[in-house]
Amino acid sequence: MKNMKSASIILASGSPRRKQLLEQIDLKFQVIPSQVHEDFNLDLIPEKFVEHYAQEKAMDIANTFPDKWIIGADTVVVFHSEILGKPKDRDDSYRMLKMLSGNTHQVFTGVSIQHKEMKVSDTFHHCTNVTFNTLDDNDIFYYIDTYKPFDKAGSYGIQDWFSVCINHIDGCFYNVMGFPLSKFYSRFSKLLKLNK
Amino acid sequence: MKNMKSASIILASGSPRRKQLLEQIDLKFQVIPSQVHEDFNLDLIPEKFVEHYAQEKAMDIANTFPDKWIIGADTVVVFHSEILGKPKDRDDSYRMLKMLSGNTHQVFTGVSIQHKEMKVSDTFHHCTNVTFNTLDDNDIFYYIDTYKPFDKAGSYGIQDWFSVCINHIDGCFYNVMGFPLSKFYSRFSKLLKLNK
Repeated sequence: MKNMKSASIILASGSPRRKQLLEQIDLKFQVIPSQVHEDFNLDLIPEKFVEHYAQEKAMDIANTFPDKWIIGADTVVVFHSEILGKPKDRDDSYRMLKMLSGNTHQVFTGVSIQHKEMKVSDTFHHCTNVTFNTLDDNDIFYYIDTYKPFDKAGSYGIQDWFSVCINHIDGCFYNVMGFPLSKFYSRFSKLLKLNK
Repeated sequence: MKNMKSASIILASGSPRRKQLLEQIDLKFQVIPSQVHEDFNLDLIPEKFVEHYAQEKAMDIANTFPDKWIIGADTVVVFHSEILGKPKDRDDSYRMLKMLSGNTHQVFTGVSIQHKEMKVSDTFHHCTNVTFNTLDDNDIFYYIDTYKPFDKAGSYGIQDWFSVCINHIDGCFYNVMGFPLSKFYSRFSKLLKLNK
């Protein structure tokens, strides 16, 4: 714990949810969002896709701060092999939620931990299965118009009103919010011990 | 949704987590905690135990407010048939976390919805499986001494630092926090439609 508190850490993501989750585990860090953006035409399977972008984001910031620990992350929702990022607009949001209604999909988050001067590079992913209730259109439109989930992969937030639409999950809850806390903590603790 | 917003509702629980969860789904309600307390010597299986106390708590408040919707809830942690409530002290907290370490346990929450004048009484439960990582004593003592989880069934909060100790869950996350939002929403919406 002490190691983790005193290490100099940058979160290379502008996501307010990732910031909140890292604060939840008592980590002290700065936020400097990377300017790397996903290209959904990139032909990679989901686990490689999120690892690729988590690493790109972390390395982008590591180049400027080679003496610090950099954390990058990338989250996508996957249904029947289609990778869903953030919805383009209201129609796209409706299309995504209607498609996921009554079904089970996967949420993949890639995490990359980089420390350039110490030559540390560790990238991994986690997958959680999420099953939605069968949604009626009233609920879908209420959600889209009230919560405007346009900054969220798959067009929903498991931590807001939409929680009433989720039947169950299998895996790590925080992974669905955008950061697999438990897996990250275990990997990062080991890296800090090895690189004191 | 509109029905739910305009109904006159009382949460018969003093748990700040339950209050936060019901606010998360845009419910408007008052909090009037019931004075009913669990007796762990009561010989009931976990699902009946939590339903019994959820109903006792809701009916306790319904007697005073027969014209309002009352929501009661009760949560326990169960491991190898032992029902764990809140830890008595630091030693009991350590005993619980050490016992759950590396294992899968069940979290049961009972919910009871009462409206005395409308003769509505609906009580149900939900169960979620939770699997802990193997915990080392440093982490357990850090958690107990920093977070003092003495008001929490099973001696942990899935929504605080302890999230790093949870390997995965199977079921409803919010049920582990003390209230199965999705199942409640579905049952309560139907009751409000039937009793307009």
